[in-house]
Amino acid sequence: MDLNTDLVQELLGALPHEGGVLTDPDLLQSYEHDEADLVPYGTPAVVVRPRTTGQVSAVLRAATRHRIPVIPQGARSGLAGGANAIEGAIVLSLTGMNEIIDIDAANRIAVVQPGVVNAQLRRAVAAEGLYYPPDPGSWEQSTIGGNVSTDAGGMCCVKYGVTSDHVIGLEVVLASGEVLNCGRRTAKGVAGYDLTSLFVGSEGTLGVITEITVKLRPAPEPALTLVAVFDTLAAAGAAVSAVVSSGMQPSMLEVIDRVTLTAIEAYRPMDLPTAAAALLVAAVDSGGRAPDDLARIAAMCRSAQASDVYVASDEAEADSLLAARRLAHPALEHFAAQLFPGGGGIMVDDVAVPRTRLVELIEGIEFISAEHGVVVATVGHAGDGNLHPIIVIDRSDPVNLAQGQKVFDAIMSLGLSLGGTSTGEHGVGLLKRDWLAREIGPTGLKAHRSIKTALDPDNILNPGKVF
Amino acid sequence: MDLNTDLVQELLGALPHEGGVLTDPDLLQSYEHDEADLVPYGTPAVVVRPRTTGQVSAVLRAATRHRIPVIPQGARSGLAGGANAIEGAIVLSLTGMNEIIDIDAANRIAVVQPGVVNAQLRRAVAAEGLYYPPDPGSWEQSTIGGNVSTDAGGMCCVKYGVTSDHVIGLEVVLASGEVLNCGRRTAKGVAGYDLTSLFVGSEGTLGVITEITVKLRPAPEPALTLVAVFDTLAAAGAAVSAVVSSGMQPSMLEVIDRVTLTAIEAYRPMDLPTAAAALLVAAVDSGGRAPDDLARIAAMCRSAQASDVYVASDEAEADSLLAARRLAHPALEHFAAQLFPGGGGIMVDDVAVPRTRLVELIEGIEFISAEHGVVVATVGHAGDGNLHPIIVIDRSDPVNLAQGQKVFDAIMSLGLSLGGTSTGEHGVGLLKRDWLAREIGPTGLKAHRSIKTALDPDNILNPGKVF
Repeated sequence: MDLNTDLVQELLGALPHEGGVLTDPDLLQSYEHDEADLVPYGTPAVVVRPRTTGQVSAVLRAATRHRIPVIPQGARSGLAGGANAIEGAIVLSLTGMNEIIDIDAANRIAVVQPGVVNAQLRRAVAAEGLYYPPDPGSWEQSTIGGNVSTDAGGMCCVKYGVTSDHVIGLEVVLASGEVLNCGRRTAKGVAGYDLTSLFVGSEGTLGVITEITVKLRPAPEPALTLVAVFDTLAAAGAAVSAVVSSGMQPSMLEVIDRVTLTAIEAYRPMDLPTAAAALLVAAVDSGGRAPDDLARIAAMCRSAQASDVYVASDEAEADSLLAARRLAHPALEHFAAQLFPGGGGIMVDDVAVPRTRLVELIEGIEFISAEHGVVVATVGHAGDGNLHPIIVIDRSDPVNLAQGQKVFDAIMSLGLSLGGTSTGEHGVGLLKRDWLAREIGPTGLKAHRSIKTALDPDNILNPGKVF
Repeated sequence: MDLNTDLVQELLGALPHEGGVLTDPDLLQSYEHDEADLVPYGTPAVVVRPRTTGQVSAVLRAATRHRIPVIPQGARSGLAGGANAIEGAIVLSLTGMNEIIDIDAANRIAVVQPGVVNAQLRRAVAAEGLYYPPDPGSWEQSTIGGNVSTDAGGMCCVKYGVTSDHVIGLEVVLASGEVLNCGRRTAKGVAGYDLTSLFVGSEGTLGVITEITVKLRPAPEPALTLVAVFDTLAAAGAAVSAVVSSGMQPSMLEVIDRVTLTAIEAYRPMDLPTAAAALLVAAVDSGGRAPDDLARIAAMCRSAQASDVYVASDEAEADSLLAARRLAHPALEHFAAQLFPGGGGIMVDDVAVPRTRLVELIEGIEFISAEHGVVVATVGHAGDGNLHPIIVIDRSDPVNLAQGQKVFDAIMSLGLSLGGTSTGEHGVGLLKRDWLAREIGPTGLKAHRSIKTALDPDNILNPGKVF
């Protein structure tokens, strides 16, 4: 307790602004965990909300002196427990550092603080005719800092890549409190090790990101969108394979299965074809070539036995299709609560396989679901081979929970056996530490540990996460 | 000597094939250095040419046991001395590991050994309708392993990015001899630290790359090409700024100055407009939109006072323009030899600035050249803000050499002052160690050192390079 009193005094000295240091137990509770279900968390001793890089340095120096873990947090919308607090730790919330420092339209870059919300950046650059592609499902809540720390993806990735494809420079506060600048503002640059990429996706275990330089693209051409309806998931998968093998570059290629459709329709009725096994939502933003591209995708869907292919007549209609896709998580939570009134919940998985193995993954998930008698909704970024199987569980029933965990493990195992990875875009956090170890093997783990030790010798930064 | 005899015996045991271990002094000499001028090198004690990853492991285990430095080498076409041998070291030449292991057309990836030549990979994937964009000037000689180690660029980068934008997985032999697999074969994947990006561009200081997985693109549409002729370099720079600020995505945007034009014309006469201050060569591969895009670029060049704009009538003509651009290095070497028969040579520099600062960089280089009375030819990837000022020197004249070094330093200093980086694509090697230190500062250097020590605790891998 004395230690903590000392620490809090020190933190109050460094962050004297109102709300800079929180110790009220009710407030502390609200910083305990992100949106991952069924992973452990504790109550922090203190929450700090710095406004400057200097304050972040001060917090890390104090933490190092007291040997207290620091858990960096953004909007806590993560899905792997990467931002979960440890009992007695310092939570370092970066949502107050939310300034867009610079939008340099001529050089097509933006410099932002980590607490800037994804949608805020997207809108600000759109006003300059520019485009920041990464669009995780949480884009209205999640912060760029969190997106960078987890290397977040979204629906854009099939054409535009994930967050790491857009970050070119970082300011990072190291465990020692020293401020490291890495990367550049130039279009090209290869000076020294690519530390920028090392910090992207490191989930707060190597340093605290306090400034981010991203590259921007010209605003894309307006997208044309279609929906194809399939009687089997495998047929939808076959259509995806045809599209991705064709060399075309759709700007979106998403799959939504029957369980998800039913849940969305129940949550917000919009005449979705709930009798279908799956919908594909595809978009192209290839300008003058777009109508041809869309027609080719439509033809490929029909060849793959789509029972209906429907082209959105305008952007408004396309947006409403996207809105449906974006409702998958809340709708499935609602569905779970109705199915299991005592404790319904969802485990959101994230697995990516080589695109040509998508059908095998989809069929395997169906088999696993049936075998264990557990409802699994499948939705995701089909064009990337990246699916989010969502396992519907009853938290109040230990038998059901155990089955849910078995299903989760079986899907992870299937993904790896298909040459895939245990996380396409959500990160490892606490949820997938064992799977990371299995995926990268002992030599990979050893390399991870040695780098972690090199940059954070006292292991104060988000300890226990990732590996 | 005993130590070396022991070592050689051990290496012969591990690499028993013909030519696996070279100790003939004449042969050793030919492995001493890459193509950088005026940087130090030594004679290796032994050159090993492994054929398998297991043999690379054996070499590194032996080197670690004997505490002898290992210098990985590809085609030695690098321009920063990164592959230069150290006296008494083991040179590890990877040109014998030159197999294309897999081209997976449906998933658009290729898996190759490091000794595969860039052009060999490009042609192999082109046969499948695919495209591997990175195209360094040395593409007919340089290896993918070397390209990855230096994060090589080329003329494609303005649209398609550098080597690191295309590498998704690596097999790396660590200093301990352990084999690390990092990255993935999937379109997306964020499992653990991005070790792949850490090794890309690390110039052989962190591990020996023995297998590379790259992503491929669909074959691009045929390019349309134009040449614009300018009376001042600044006018050419203004045209570049207009094009890059417009949001268009040319597939090439190169500048060639008068000195370079004159040198190329003297080396291989092709009616280049040697009275011009600069040529811009621009290409677009945007399919149906390409003629419009090219017309817009032409209009921008005319607005920037181009004295002539010439559209290539077909791909053959465009190819001959590119061939001229690719002759810059040998032509300038020839020019230097004629200018200074006693010891003419060139120092190839590489500096990148934010694209909007290009005119300032170009004008600054002209000023520096005039101020020091040293001929500087400027050629490069204007669309990326990445120039290669080529300093023409007389190796036999210490005064001229000293002036050349001053010009080199002044250009580096100018680049950094414009918010640029000391190397856009050639790497640091030995040539730019001091400039890297200046660019990344003491905290950056410390982070580099700690990572180097974590992965190579005995400092046997290409010691002394980069920092």
